[in-house]
Amino acid sequence: MILNPNMAATRPSPVVEAKRWIADKTFSPDLPLLNVSQAAPVDPPPLALREAMADVALTLPAAHVYGPVLGLPSLREALAARFSQAYGGPITPGNVAITQGCNQAFCAALSTLAGPGDEVILPTPWYFNHQMWLSLSGVRTVPLPTGDELLPTVAEAEARLTDRTRAIVLVTPNNPAGVEYPADLVHAFADLARANGLALILDETYRDFDSRPSAPHDLFSDPAWSDTLIQLYSFSKAYRLTGHRVGALVASPERLVSVEKFLDTVAICPSQLGQHAALWGLMNLDQWLAGERAEILARRGAIEEGFVKLPDWHLSGAGAYFAYVRHPFDESSGTLARRMVDDIAVLALPGSMFTPEGDPSGAAHLRIAFANIDTTGIATLMDRLATLS
Amino acid sequence: MILNPNMAATRPSPVVEAKRWIADKTFSPDLPLLNVSQAAPVDPPPLALREAMADVALTLPAAHVYGPVLGLPSLREALAARFSQAYGGPITPGNVAITQGCNQAFCAALSTLAGPGDEVILPTPWYFNHQMWLSLSGVRTVPLPTGDELLPTVAEAEARLTDRTRAIVLVTPNNPAGVEYPADLVHAFADLARANGLALILDETYRDFDSRPSAPHDLFSDPAWSDTLIQLYSFSKAYRLTGHRVGALVASPERLVSVEKFLDTVAICPSQLGQHAALWGLMNLDQWLAGERAEILARRGAIEEGFVKLPDWHLSGAGAYFAYVRHPFDESSGTLARRMVDDIAVLALPGSMFTPEGDPSGAAHLRIAFANIDTTGIATLMDRLATLS
Repeated sequence: MILNPNMAATRPSPVVEAKRWIADKTFSPDLPLLNVSQAAPVDPPPLALREAMADVALTLPAAHVYGPVLGLPSLREALAARFSQAYGGPITPGNVAITQGCNQAFCAALSTLAGPGDEVILPTPWYFNHQMWLSLSGVRTVPLPTGDELLPTVAEAEARLTDRTRAIVLVTPNNPAGVEYPADLVHAFADLARANGLALILDETYRDFDSRPSAPHDLFSDPAWSDTLIQLYSFSKAYRLTGHRVGALVASPERLVSVEKFLDTVAICPSQLGQHAALWGLMNLDQWLAGERAEILARRGAIEEGFVKLPDWHLSGAGAYFAYVRHPFDESSGTLARRMVDDIAVLALPGSMFTPEGDPSGAAHLRIAFANIDTTGIATLMDRLATLS
Repeated sequence: MILNPNMAATRPSPVVEAKRWIADKTFSPDLPLLNVSQAAPVDPPPLALREAMADVALTLPAAHVYGPVLGLPSLREALAARFSQAYGGPITPGNVAITQGCNQAFCAALSTLAGPGDEVILPTPWYFNHQMWLSLSGVRTVPLPTGDELLPTVAEAEARLTDRTRAIVLVTPNNPAGVEYPADLVHAFADLARANGLALILDETYRDFDSRPSAPHDLFSDPAWSDTLIQLYSFSKAYRLTGHRVGALVASPERLVSVEKFLDTVAICPSQLGQHAALWGLMNLDQWLAGERAEILARRGAIEEGFVKLPDWHLSGAGAYFAYVRHPFDESSGTLARRMVDDIAVLALPGSMFTPEGDPSGAAHLRIAFANIDTTGIATLMDRLATLS
């Protein structure tokens, strides 16, 4: 069978793989499956948002036909206004593109920056779909190891720059590591990128669940931000719209000319109903989202307390939807994760799915997406982990 | 600004470009704009389908969260059953992937086949987004000229094969040329592809508007079809779902393993509401679609009659949504198309947007997407073309 070598060299999707682990298993009512593999809301959006979507479907003919490639002007405008206020810097509608989900925003950004043989720096553990896209594109992933704090350092990044480096990617709050990158660290990476003529891609998919009360970084307050920064965002997590695929990319208007070529070719336009839902959310769900954030922060607190009582385990990072934990067993996370399905009916993704082949830190860690289980569920999780031997 | 050289080498989207031509123009009430640039329905889906979508939004929580990467099992099953019957060959749900529109199906198919430096054969005039994706991927487009009939020949294709050739792409009914490829021609191309270990990508976006009463080709009746054939389809045209982005890819289960990697990375999953709409359409809109097809065939008849009365023009191809016409002027289609906006308030895309730089056939033709104007509109179009000098 003909196969693109870049496709052959790309690992399968971890999410698809993990679904296969449980596809033909049955779980007893005494020990039902506890699924902490998924970085996504499991409940639908609030009823009022669903009603708004139904209303658009019935009453707005334009919502059924092609829209602009870069997204609905009203949504681009609303997001620009929101982010200008949140980050204290000028972001215009002409800086914003709407995409079919945030993964696609990453693909679009990268396609404007790097071609075959170029290099992009990803801190490890990385978000696997980022690495998969680089691999599919023939772009070399340069792993940037992080230490015990799971934070990359500028010095280590600088040591990895070559004349083929095109971009550095940061995800904050981080998936899978949970850590919130300090504002000064993000700033230092922007300085490094600018000094070397690189792009800094800042994936803020989980920004709405950051525990810090104010802006998580000050990059947009620099009037020249758009010469370096490309910011990515997802509406899916905030308003529970994962099934509708709505993300965003914030960059210079010049870069959006190239983004538009990519999106026209791969997408033509984002889902219209999803965009209307995101716009409705921006207009109406601030209070509701504040409650969601508080609930997820409470779950994070429960996770932190829970691991204190499991001294053999180590909570290396916690934040947004994720805990990244070091397990106490003398086996790779890949085999442990599969064994956990059988032994304690818990599905979590192994750190090895987020790291280069053979990476010892990945083998030592698991990612627990705790956002979908309430504090009772978290207590159950802890009880089950305690019985694992 | 850092720019991927493959992006820099990719032409801008013709659709976006043409929208800019009219963006700051005003048209007089005496001579309103006649837009025949767009290959898409301009009306929303039937009310019953919109009601079904609203109902799903309100009552089905699962429609708001992530679905399977390859699409809803029920939709894959329904399409497999429909196509098995229509083409007289066995197509299973495991052969079907649902995508965020048919452009994405093409991108996914190509990403499994060809990497940088590989070659893919496209008959000219081509569908521009196909060529744009090849360019963005660093895959070399090998143009395959077609003659007066706008049909490619196997001999000309064979003469262009090299050891880097990975696939041949056919679009039937053709965009932009309108022509319906004869079944034996399609079969001969499949034979050529198989004999040389290549893939044949058959884009049947406009299959529902083919004028022929029975199956347009017999490729699926070969039990070994999936070693060579990748078929693409769009629900957007049939059920007026362009704003919801639902397409499909039919291939071997082995190839879908790679398609799944691409879709997981670029899309995660197709829009859930769009998929439910497509499924509802398959279940309920056969009669309605037959009426749509009859109407579009009637418009095609009006186009054919109209050009008989314009002897300086030549209708080179007509079918599906398109007429591909040779104009009588001593200028390139690119300048003519812009002049037509000013002189007769008609927006059509020039053939040069569908052909390699400097191609004389492209310079001599215009694409008229007549599906959106009724027979009165077609009469108006003919009157205006007659005044053009």
